[in-house]
Amino acid sequence: MKALDGEYDESALPLLLTRRGMAEWTGDAVRILDRRRLPSTVVFIECREVEDVAQAIETMTIQGAFTLSLAAGYGMALALRTALDAADARRRLRDAARRLAATRPTGLALARMIAACEAAAGSSNTPGDAIEAIVRVVDGKAAELARQALATARHALPLLADAGAILTHCFADRSLLYLLLEAKRAGRSMHVYCSETRPYLQGARLTAPAVLETGHRATVITDGMGGFLMRRGEVQAFVTAADRVCMDGTVCNKVGTYQFALAARANGVPYYVVRQSGPDRESADETHVEIEFRDGEQVLRCAGERTTVDGVDALYPAFDVTPPDLVTAIVTDRGAFAPHDVGSYAEALSPLGRASG
Amino acid sequence: MKALDGEYDESALPLLLTRRGMAEWTGDAVRILDRRRLPSTVVFIECREVEDVAQAIETMTIQGAFTLSLAAGYGMALALRTALDAADARRRLRDAARRLAATRPTGLALARMIAACEAAAGSSNTPGDAIEAIVRVVDGKAAELARQALATARHALPLLADAGAILTHCFADRSLLYLLLEAKRAGRSMHVYCSETRPYLQGARLTAPAVLETGHRATVITDGMGGFLMRRGEVQAFVTAADRVCMDGTVCNKVGTYQFALAARANGVPYYVVRQSGPDRESADETHVEIEFRDGEQVLRCAGERTTVDGVDALYPAFDVTPPDLVTAIVTDRGAFAPHDVGSYAEALSPLGRASG
Repeated sequence: MKALDGEYDESALPLLLTRRGMAEWTGDAVRILDRRRLPSTVVFIECREVEDVAQAIETMTIQGAFTLSLAAGYGMALALRTALDAADARRRLRDAARRLAATRPTGLALARMIAACEAAAGSSNTPGDAIEAIVRVVDGKAAELARQALATARHALPLLADAGAILTHCFADRSLLYLLLEAKRAGRSMHVYCSETRPYLQGARLTAPAVLETGHRATVITDGMGGFLMRRGEVQAFVTAADRVCMDGTVCNKVGTYQFALAARANGVPYYVVRQSGPDRESADETHVEIEFRDGEQVLRCAGERTTVDGVDALYPAFDVTPPDLVTAIVTDRGAFAPHDVGSYAEALSPLGRASG
Repeated sequence: MKALDGEYDESALPLLLTRRGMAEWTGDAVRILDRRRLPSTVVFIECREVEDVAQAIETMTIQGAFTLSLAAGYGMALALRTALDAADARRRLRDAARRLAATRPTGLALARMIAACEAAAGSSNTPGDAIEAIVRVVDGKAAELARQALATARHALPLLADAGAILTHCFADRSLLYLLLEAKRAGRSMHVYCSETRPYLQGARLTAPAVLETGHRATVITDGMGGFLMRRGEVQAFVTAADRVCMDGTVCNKVGTYQFALAARANGVPYYVVRQSGPDRESADETHVEIEFRDGEQVLRCAGERTTVDGVDALYPAFDVTPPDLVTAIVTDRGAFAPHDVGSYAEALSPLGRASG
């Protein structure tokens, strides 16, 4: 079976790039790979209510700005399954949109997906038609995201021509994995240092196993070690995804990114953001970014065990902000942009042959 | 009972500043607080052989450059307990020195303590006399370290006059805790952000509870969040200990320090090193620092559980190097020094009224 990207075979992809590795519509449920249990256990949950999907996002059962937007999109279809009539459907859809949008304020892919689903449903006559329309929209977006990621990877690879080893942080989603697949196709072997990304450990649990699946070497470090590596000249690039990119090139990504970006700059290491699509036109600059704070209790636990005593509190900003002057290039499906030029993405020719973003 | 510092009451100190919170000589063993089990369990181990002490250091049962040097010093006495004669004692002492020095190459307090114990034993006539001489040396050093830490804290406090909140990394040992005790005495309330310090979690397990014991607020963050806090203006200073300070002001401390120092500099936050004693005269600069690498397997575990799949490896440099231009001041028992001036420590008047360091 061809993968969503339209080129690779589904079986050649690491689990997290496959359809089942993200979210699928089963006809009456949203099936989601439970990322909390990875990598030790591959188990899927079936969400039959909007609330189930919302909680799956909030509990990080599914994560990654673009990936979770797919689950939310299919979740919109769930809202209509028991609608009594058109008026009831509108109410349910509005409630679902509100609930799902509230799960994660920092990335905008989610808000866009919800808006697209609402629009698709709005032009349908019956709840059944609306469900079909929503699923079609989300399926289309899933394929588009995969093709964008592959295109992004192809634009990024030449920038990393001399990079034998790179550092990444958190789970850089499809673009980085396609980049590694493309590097392998080109006969290259890369060494990917994955910062573990506390407290949820995306780097150790999701990224490192996926890197291995692409046939490259994965080495885990703690979130405090990237600067050490860069100062020693052990990595030739720092590469991350971005949950939000402002029009001025400001990058919002998993907390910890900013520190690595500073260390990269201090040591002459380029920082590439593989964004896969364009900047967020709604965000002129950092002042438009709302940083999501999660439950500090998660910082106080390691593998479920409390790490400190009662009376100590914790802070858990999920993201941080990296100013554009620390970013070497923002790589999109339409090519690599200098951060201050990323606003011209909209005018750039889409390699997919149509206006998107 | 008066504490080792000669001023505070032992009962007024956080556990990790007390005699029993470090290492004690029992007459035929070295009793060590097992820091691996903190903060949930307070348990002591008794080392009866040099090898036990060496392993306690290697397994991080005891940690902190100066604190573990006390255990090693008492460990030298253990070597002599079963010596047959003076020649046998010399052999055993030499073997013990070699074994203990090999446990931790980066900090020099350990090497100095071992040399001091060898010198003390060398001028003794019998193994029994030598044991007494060694214990006297180590007891004296323990008291000296406590007094130096208190003096350092008093020099550091005025530098933090406007700091309502500070960030620290790893366990900054005695000086930071005395600083907090002195701040409390002066009626101040401080907010101490403690980076958890993966993989051993010194920040969450040791520092945060000790901060609470001193009566201040402790908030744990992950090792990737310090930059976020500094960019938001949430902390007014970054404060750490140092495992080694070179004569040119280069600071070697727990890995992760360098990234925070970069973030501090980028955001106009001062970085103070509370060193408690002088620089290491053996180390002109960074080229003289050997970074200790520990077992990467520890990075791959959280609370004992593996975080990733087989085939993924890990790197565990225990320390990193912060160049002097990122350091605001190195605070010692003889006052605060600009990093490039720290070499003049030896000529500075000792507040203890004698040449030390």
